[in-house]
Amino acid sequence: MLDRVFGEIESRRSDSVAALKNLLRIPSVSTKPDHLPDMARCAAWLADQIRQTGLSASVEPTRGHPIVLGASPRQMDRPTVLLYGHYDVQPPEPLELWTTPPFEPAERDGAIYARGASDDKGQIWAHIEAIRVWQRHGGLPVNLIVLIEGEEEIASKNLEAFLRQRRADLAADIAVVSDSGQFARGLPAITYGLRGLVYMEVFITAASCDLHSGIYGGAVPNPANVLCEVLATLHDRDGRVNIPGFYHDVVPLSAPDRQAFAQLPFDERRFMQDLGVGGLCGEAGFSTIERQWARPTCDINGLTAGYQGPGAKTIIPAKASAKVSMRLVPNQDPRKIEQAFRQAICQRCPNTVTVEFAQHGLGAAALVPLDSPAMKLAAAAVKQGFGTEPVFMREGGSIPVVGHIKSILGIDTLLVGFGLPDDRVHAPNEKFDLDALYCGTRTAAALYHQLARL
Amino acid sequence: MLDRVFGEIESRRSDSVAALKNLLRIPSVSTKPDHLPDMARCAAWLADQIRQTGLSASVEPTRGHPIVLGASPRQMDRPTVLLYGHYDVQPPEPLELWTTPPFEPAERDGAIYARGASDDKGQIWAHIEAIRVWQRHGGLPVNLIVLIEGEEEIASKNLEAFLRQRRADLAADIAVVSDSGQFARGLPAITYGLRGLVYMEVFITAASCDLHSGIYGGAVPNPANVLCEVLATLHDRDGRVNIPGFYHDVVPLSAPDRQAFAQLPFDERRFMQDLGVGGLCGEAGFSTIERQWARPTCDINGLTAGYQGPGAKTIIPAKASAKVSMRLVPNQDPRKIEQAFRQAICQRCPNTVTVEFAQHGLGAAALVPLDSPAMKLAAAAVKQGFGTEPVFMREGGSIPVVGHIKSILGIDTLLVGFGLPDDRVHAPNEKFDLDALYCGTRTAAALYHQLARL
Repeated sequence: MLDRVFGEIESRRSDSVAALKNLLRIPSVSTKPDHLPDMARCAAWLADQIRQTGLSASVEPTRGHPIVLGASPRQMDRPTVLLYGHYDVQPPEPLELWTTPPFEPAERDGAIYARGASDDKGQIWAHIEAIRVWQRHGGLPVNLIVLIEGEEEIASKNLEAFLRQRRADLAADIAVVSDSGQFARGLPAITYGLRGLVYMEVFITAASCDLHSGIYGGAVPNPANVLCEVLATLHDRDGRVNIPGFYHDVVPLSAPDRQAFAQLPFDERRFMQDLGVGGLCGEAGFSTIERQWARPTCDINGLTAGYQGPGAKTIIPAKASAKVSMRLVPNQDPRKIEQAFRQAICQRCPNTVTVEFAQHGLGAAALVPLDSPAMKLAAAAVKQGFGTEPVFMREGGSIPVVGHIKSILGIDTLLVGFGLPDDRVHAPNEKFDLDALYCGTRTAAALYHQLARL
Repeated sequence: MLDRVFGEIESRRSDSVAALKNLLRIPSVSTKPDHLPDMARCAAWLADQIRQTGLSASVEPTRGHPIVLGASPRQMDRPTVLLYGHYDVQPPEPLELWTTPPFEPAERDGAIYARGASDDKGQIWAHIEAIRVWQRHGGLPVNLIVLIEGEEEIASKNLEAFLRQRRADLAADIAVVSDSGQFARGLPAITYGLRGLVYMEVFITAASCDLHSGIYGGAVPNPANVLCEVLATLHDRDGRVNIPGFYHDVVPLSAPDRQAFAQLPFDERRFMQDLGVGGLCGEAGFSTIERQWARPTCDINGLTAGYQGPGAKTIIPAKASAKVSMRLVPNQDPRKIEQAFRQAICQRCPNTVTVEFAQHGLGAAALVPLDSPAMKLAAAAVKQGFGTEPVFMREGGSIPVVGHIKSILGIDTLLVGFGLPDDRVHAPNEKFDLDALYCGTRTAAALYHQLARL
């Protein structure tokens, strides 16, 4: 039966791309209030597509953006799979760096370019296509629950509450998330580790308004100077994060992990070329892959202070702010890290300024056991879908839902992703390879086939 | 005759305020290309006003914004005074902090609120009123040349060339600039020292586009982190500027200067209250007034990097930039300081990033001799105008033209200013006291009377 399913997936290649473009045209930017109507439209569109496959589907309200929930009729003698994806996307700015507009999907060089193409619309689309084709060939071989949220890019604020409230409806044997990537083109992967996240914003205030830098300069506190001085303390000379207790709960990388990472075909020169960087840096004593996948970080994501227009404005800004996020590794507690960050910043600010914080996201890191039956079935599915054995990798990004699925629903997650390292997710000119969409659809179909044996 | 002039100045108080409002309605923001037409309109309006007093006036083009040039008929037996002012203003942002819109002048609590009210439109208006009234009472007692430029807030980019080209037309015995302030309400001042300025912008670039902070964080250079780390090195623990050679040419403050500063009635608690700051800081070993008037500084005027919108965006910015200005004291060479700044930044940046610079202004500090005849006449004029003896002070701001007038035209400048320390120049809710306008107009009239004896 899988052969016939594969045959129809091939014959539907153009239809699948055309439909995905419709999804990519909806500017579902979750972080911007302007896009509220687009979020609702995107959820409704997806629910409609899921219904067209023959599954039931509904748009479930939350305190934030709605969740799309779909389900096949439940049969008692089959395993149940919970598929998770997200329909929200990162803001597209800076717009001037896009070759074609972010919400006008364009095909070139064997890829489809649009915001969200790889993260995560193209990947959820592969699953919806696989579902559609299975339904035309006797129906899905597993019970399937589809959950597509609209707040992944804003730290899945309302997902945890939803999982708790609907625990019974969401009961499953295994979860599947396709929001990760292949290791390289032609080298598909199963991701067994993700980093967590603590995303903070720091606001430093001094005077009640901007002051003339000639008249007052040298005599009054400058919040922009203070901000830089404080942020500069967040790393030591070895590139380690300089926050007391930050590494306290970090489990050291095992020798087998380090060996497995070192054996992956990683071309550092090519990596630098792709990113356009003149050099690499990071925590001393670790390789680039180790720094990306398995070591915690602290990065400034945005800085705002004073005059940002053309030319000169001679002011001492009244306030300065920074968005700062930390990626966590297994065993670090996001709440403890948030607390440690707040304390370190407060202690390092002079008492001539006021410090305030906002928190824009918390999530723990995740590690999925490599030796489970589900992992082996997933590996077989990837081999069927891509024609190549997958590698087992970790990823530096965060998918907080994996932690919530484990803690609330009690099940493990298979991270089977189809993106490529050069997809430019979160950046201008994001793309998704047409081949990744095709092989991803085959893999999704094969995965439902394999998991029927669970 | 001065009594009759004073009498008419009094009777014209409301007319003067009404006309100044028309000047303040023109949004002559020199740093923003959008305001090009407003700049031309403002120059034309001023030339017209000067012509109405009976002087000749013209709008002189430069490579940037035009200069308004006026002149009384030259009589050989009289001293010639060069009056300098500027009609351009600082950008009004942040607009939301203004009680009334910046270009809709509003009277309240005995003051007129608008961008440029004190810096410098209100002050040049005092002179134009004084000229007008003198012309109605037998004519000005001195030869007067009026030069009002439109680029003071953007470092007087084209003024130096203009002074060189028109040296003969601008030949004078003394220059007068009213672009400074009283020491306090009821305590008028003559300013004999100004700080200089070096205004730089630093751009740090790493990757060719913003990168996902999860996937790449910890392994690639983050230009925002680098920017903060480098800017944090610009001061040492004692608040001294940490750039090699920065203090090399600084002339130490003399004991008499320090004594004179210490005797001024300066209320540090009140000063802090007015600014809304919780504490003061600066170079160790100097008083607040010394830090403001006579010690060099380095302040961040603006920071820009990464995502600045609401909520979270998990990126490592491709670039980060800062506007940084240094105030200079007498004998520091702006060009040497610019060079030292560039070198220090470049040396302190890791070679994983690219550094570029823009320069938005250079000007030397100025000190005018306290014991000259012109200074004594100016003191007498202030006493006539305000009814109080002036104090002699320095100011922390920069008026580059004072240096150019000395080096190109060979004459000293009298800095007789009417602003008040709480005028909020360069900040939201800038204002100019109606009393300052009135006493300033009297002082300007008295100054022309006194300088006739030079």
